[in-house]
Amino acid sequence: MAQLEGIETDLWPSEVAVMDVAPRDGLQNEPHIMPTAEKIHLIETLAEAGVTRIQATSFVSAKAVPQLADAAEVATGIKRLPGVRYFALVPNEKGYDRAVASGVEDITLVLSATETMNRNNINMSIAKSMGLAKRLFRRAKDDGLNVRADVAVAFVCAFEGTVDRQTVVDQVDELFALGADQVCLADTTGRADPRHVAKLFALVRKKHGSERLAGHFHDTLGMGLANTVAAMQQGIAFFDTAIGGLGGCPFTPGATGNVSTEDVVSMLNQMGVTTTIDLDRLCEATDLVEELSGSKLPSAYYRSVRSGNKRSIGGG
Amino acid sequence: MAQLEGIETDLWPSEVAVMDVAPRDGLQNEPHIMPTAEKIHLIETLAEAGVTRIQATSFVSAKAVPQLADAAEVATGIKRLPGVRYFALVPNEKGYDRAVASGVEDITLVLSATETMNRNNINMSIAKSMGLAKRLFRRAKDDGLNVRADVAVAFVCAFEGTVDRQTVVDQVDELFALGADQVCLADTTGRADPRHVAKLFALVRKKHGSERLAGHFHDTLGMGLANTVAAMQQGIAFFDTAIGGLGGCPFTPGATGNVSTEDVVSMLNQMGVTTTIDLDRLCEATDLVEELSGSKLPSAYYRSVRSGNKRSIGGG
Repeated sequence: MAQLEGIETDLWPSEVAVMDVAPRDGLQNEPHIMPTAEKIHLIETLAEAGVTRIQATSFVSAKAVPQLADAAEVATGIKRLPGVRYFALVPNEKGYDRAVASGVEDITLVLSATETMNRNNINMSIAKSMGLAKRLFRRAKDDGLNVRADVAVAFVCAFEGTVDRQTVVDQVDELFALGADQVCLADTTGRADPRHVAKLFALVRKKHGSERLAGHFHDTLGMGLANTVAAMQQGIAFFDTAIGGLGGCPFTPGATGNVSTEDVVSMLNQMGVTTTIDLDRLCEATDLVEELSGSKLPSAYYRSVRSGNKRSIGGG
Repeated sequence: MAQLEGIETDLWPSEVAVMDVAPRDGLQNEPHIMPTAEKIHLIETLAEAGVTRIQATSFVSAKAVPQLADAAEVATGIKRLPGVRYFALVPNEKGYDRAVASGVEDITLVLSATETMNRNNINMSIAKSMGLAKRLFRRAKDDGLNVRADVAVAFVCAFEGTVDRQTVVDQVDELFALGADQVCLADTTGRADPRHVAKLFALVRKKHGSERLAGHFHDTLGMGLANTVAAMQQGIAFFDTAIGGLGGCPFTPGATGNVSTEDVVSMLNQMGVTTTIDLDRLCEATDLVEELSGSKLPSAYYRSVRSGNKRSIGGG
């Protein structure tokens, strides 16, 4: 019986914030481009189901990501509900200008924990990304915006393998020093395991507290919920999820996406952890997305509910 | 920030035993009846992949479960590998006699935590099941057999809802007092959450230690791995799983089965927890089962591997 090396695992949030990233992270990876009006409808439906944090779009170049060419139309088109925050990714200063012009109040900058991934993803060195963060965060403070930084491949990189924990801790230190209001550690490849999640969040939490940290997990290897719980045990109370488990590509078996909002909320409900989300209304939104995407979405809770949750009463 | 009420969560096994229950729990719930020779081939293939605990069959009546009418043929037909233990369910004394006659050395008796489920599942009161346990366990001791007891719906019952923890603790006390070598707490409905799992296993572990306990989780709501980790944090180091995630019915979306052997072993590998299982060879066995069942099995790891594990390199 080995001890989990000096890590306290008895913190436990009584309330958790869930950000649905489907309108950006989900749709960005869909081959089908959803019409602007339908994106707006999806975002509004999520808000009406009680999702108070929504990753609405990305002000990325239309050439790089044609799925999100309508970022400005989406950001200005949505009817904003009070108490709901609509996040947008900004990859550069031009994107920042467009986001501000579209009335965005919550911006997110993404960089990667490894050089190879950062160059592959956004064609920049990490040092250059940090320089950009410095400029953007300063402007955001002046403009009164809320700023979040996402560290992609914070656990395992598709190119460089398991990422050194201290490297990530140093990046998080730098991002907070530059003025980030929140830093999210993202398991972009879906290869983080609960022990790795516990260890990395424990290190970061000890320096910065858990209140300004978020977790972003994929369900590629089925560990999305296990990793969510591992982070919650470090006091983390803000998670990115996607309705239906959208992301990756539902048309391709195995290329599964973000951990599903339904599965996370269902688990939290059963654990007695409070969220703001109405699961029945959320599933109605999933009906909508499934109809639009024309394929079965992987969310276990959603699939279970829509099939009548047949239960085995076999021998155990 | 609430504390996880007085529960230590820092125990952590360095080695875990995984029992594949597909040949019984999986196939019992398949509409298609697998030919005896193929069952034997599946069991032998699992053993060759390093699975050292296999739930091979159930000596239930052929009328009740036609899928397992060939229990004796399977038990006597398999070429046994040294170091591998082949478990069989025995629902009554007749089943016990047949199991013994077939050379079974590891028998399992199933009863339910709730009266309604016990009557629905095996048409007996719990008191009557305990009486049966008393007689069978005594005979098994005399016959030199290893005895396991499975408590079905130990967390949430399809008929009676959330099960009182003390009721389960009392049952476990009684089963050990009657001579059980191992007791398994089964989340038959797939509705247990990690907090519930941690609390119940903590209570039972404090009385009986973790060495003689096992966990059995379903992935119906996606919580299979999260519950496995929650039990591991209580020192539990024996889990039931099924190759491919077989069980329930793969033909019916939502009626998902046992947590998949591949997903559990893959997670344990990444966590640095030792098992005896070769994941590549295991996936070859899954190929076999998938081909025989004619449907896509839900295991996330298996699906991911067989689709080339395409990874999103989008923004986070």
